[in-house]
Amino acid sequence: MGTKLAPPQATIKRLSIYLRYLNGLDGDGVKVISSHDLARKLGLNPAQVRKDLAYFGEFGKRGVGYSVKKLRDHIVKILGLQKIRKVAIVGAGGRLGTALAMYTGFEKRNFKVCALFDNDPALIGTTLEHLGQISPVSELPKLVKEREIEILILTVPARAVKEVYDMVMLSGVRAVLNFAPFKLISTENVLVHNVDLTTELESLSYHLCLQESGIPVEPDDET
Amino acid sequence: MGTKLAPPQATIKRLSIYLRYLNGLDGDGVKVISSHDLARKLGLNPAQVRKDLAYFGEFGKRGVGYSVKKLRDHIVKILGLQKIRKVAIVGAGGRLGTALAMYTGFEKRNFKVCALFDNDPALIGTTLEHLGQISPVSELPKLVKEREIEILILTVPARAVKEVYDMVMLSGVRAVLNFAPFKLISTENVLVHNVDLTTELESLSYHLCLQESGIPVEPDDET
Repeated sequence: MGTKLAPPQATIKRLSIYLRYLNGLDGDGVKVISSHDLARKLGLNPAQVRKDLAYFGEFGKRGVGYSVKKLRDHIVKILGLQKIRKVAIVGAGGRLGTALAMYTGFEKRNFKVCALFDNDPALIGTTLEHLGQISPVSELPKLVKEREIEILILTVPARAVKEVYDMVMLSGVRAVLNFAPFKLISTENVLVHNVDLTTELESLSYHLCLQESGIPVEPDDET
Repeated sequence: MGTKLAPPQATIKRLSIYLRYLNGLDGDGVKVISSHDLARKLGLNPAQVRKDLAYFGEFGKRGVGYSVKKLRDHIVKILGLQKIRKVAIVGAGGRLGTALAMYTGFEKRNFKVCALFDNDPALIGTTLEHLGQISPVSELPKLVKEREIEILILTVPARAVKEVYDMVMLSGVRAVLNFAPFKLISTENVLVHNVDLTTELESLSYHLCLQESGIPVEPDDET
């Protein structure tokens, strides 16, 4: 394999997709899958699948394919999903915050929502179903420590970002998933991923625009 | 520039980010920006910024920089955002569907929510604030045509995807942004982008895992 390169972000995202599909196959009792079948089912190119997995060592046997269980377990380890990652939502009282707090897909994949924060005085102290009470943002450092929270999901409006930023960065969490419409930059101690829901729509608009000008659109392998 | 290559998806997504930042600069009366400053403000590499923009022709003057207004207008055209794109939400009665329907960020960027769909009999006919009535999914083809809807945002639970899939694909829309935890593949007529919110968390988990094993994490340029 020669020198090991760091895998691109798109490869890491595809690992999640492979994992979900392999979990399904394992549930159905399938033992082995070829890179060709894996690619076809997920709308990808077999060479891309092999290249993605090759970043992490040798898998599968030529002409035989991948062991579903082994590949799944390996991806779980690569992504660090063998243990529960504790998550908190900042802006939990807003619509998107509540939707994400209640989203059952996270817990199925080993992310557990362990604390809820908001700065709206009318919401502090109220409870969100089985998830418990909403705390003021000032309690972030205390609860992050007590509950060993590693990841914050930030869903505050743009105007509130400045207000909560210092508290978030100093809270002791190691990663932030930022949905606020305000790009945050990673620091040495806190890794930030920014999610902008409008970007996805703009990207679709770009492809519609190509179609309108008669340029055939190739579905990209990004998902 | 030699042969023109199709820009990667990551470049298209960064165009959205440039656009947002340029809009802010224009609002502040800034006339010119260098690729270096643009990159620094957005946590990117100047070479990456120049490469992204070079896919779409020559911009800026060496040693002078980009005209904020011209670059912004050009990106608006590239992304096809000079006209309003009409959007509908399928699964508008669910928490995520409602959160997205009410998200004011879309309309600010020229995406207008023009119809709401759900299959829950208790919700059909109810209204969602100023956005109007929720219609049954069976009315998709009719309303897509009447209201000239181009993009559907799909936020139904996994179990409901099969039920609505045919109706979505035959509805006449040209693009789908799929939040359902079930990967949909683009067809010749319908371009699908899948958004999986857990993928973002898994990608953060991967980086946490690297940190835990003592490997320094370089912030990637994906946002």
